[in-house]
Amino acid sequence: MGPLALEELITAFARLPGIGRKTAQRLAFYVIKSPRDEAQALAQALLRAKDDLLPCTVCFNFTERGQELCEVCRNPRRDRQLICVVEEASDVLVLERNQLMTGVYHVLGGVLSPLDGIGPEDLRISELTARVKQEGVREIILAHNASAEGDATAEYLSRQLAPFTRVTRLARGLPVGADLDLADKVTLAHALEGRHSF
Amino acid sequence: MGPLALEELITAFARLPGIGRKTAQRLAFYVIKSPRDEAQALAQALLRAKDDLLPCTVCFNFTERGQELCEVCRNPRRDRQLICVVEEASDVLVLERNQLMTGVYHVLGGVLSPLDGIGPEDLRISELTARVKQEGVREIILAHNASAEGDATAEYLSRQLAPFTRVTRLARGLPVGADLDLADKVTLAHALEGRHSF
Repeated sequence: MGPLALEELITAFARLPGIGRKTAQRLAFYVIKSPRDEAQALAQALLRAKDDLLPCTVCFNFTERGQELCEVCRNPRRDRQLICVVEEASDVLVLERNQLMTGVYHVLGGVLSPLDGIGPEDLRISELTARVKQEGVREIILAHNASAEGDATAEYLSRQLAPFTRVTRLARGLPVGADLDLADKVTLAHALEGRHSF
Repeated sequence: MGPLALEELITAFARLPGIGRKTAQRLAFYVIKSPRDEAQALAQALLRAKDDLLPCTVCFNFTERGQELCEVCRNPRRDRQLICVVEEASDVLVLERNQLMTGVYHVLGGVLSPLDGIGPEDLRISELTARVKQEGVREIILAHNASAEGDATAEYLSRQLAPFTRVTRLARGLPVGADLDLADKVTLAHALEGRHSF
């Protein structure tokens, strides 16, 4: 095919999730045409992200090398008695970006998935239980994705934690702006079930 | 927001064309979760592509540092009397991948676009004319994109080169597998105009 340096860049891009061969090719040609600074910035950011991002020792959100606690856990104004449990560190970013959470987080690191051989011991559940017991937590909000595995994991956690604290989960219903006739059956069922008076 | 190393990686990905903020975030989290080797391979490929890819001194296709001529121009079995003119080096890759060209190439480096201030002197047209005059070229195939600028550039080149050699262009018509009722009017007009007997 083309020169080796070009093929290697296309192959490296195509290894990223959701990037097909054609997109990888487009990205590679863009990089070759753009200033060297830009390629260097991406190359450095890649290595720095790999080397400098570590899990927070309390909640397993990302923190930078040299900081044992993440930004949220370091913040003295966050409510330590309210823990929001999420599947991945990326979920923390979504909630933080929207500034919706006054409490702190706990990143489970995935969902229970017996078919993939992922059981409770593969997630950070014992660490969560320890936090709940130690810190006198007022409420645990289970903010799992609305998937079958997310639901099953939430069910499991609520059973584990209910003896120690209040456990809640995010509401299901129509997303803002949604048309009724475009909503799927399960979403509609949740919306009806969770109906409330004005 | 999140840790600096994470933000930097998301920003660097989002600078690539067609990569929005959400996709950039997904890519960044993928990189952080995947083995360091993979991030390093992409980082190295980025820098190597910037540093090692140079234009072929004859056709302006990409060649690697240390090779004055590209792979196509180096190949003694390619027909040097047949030059396929393309807009970008990426077009060479497409044609080579499909092994459709027995001749060599000439990469113009863009299209004429008076509105963007791109005139004939901004493209590698004088180099093309010089090749045609020197090498005794039998045929020039203009393989421009089917855009207004591609058409205008092809028209311009055909006027310039017609005194010296035969100038042809790619056929327009229905792409293979296309339904008549989905084809646009201009494509249909081209298909009709270019009709031929069995």
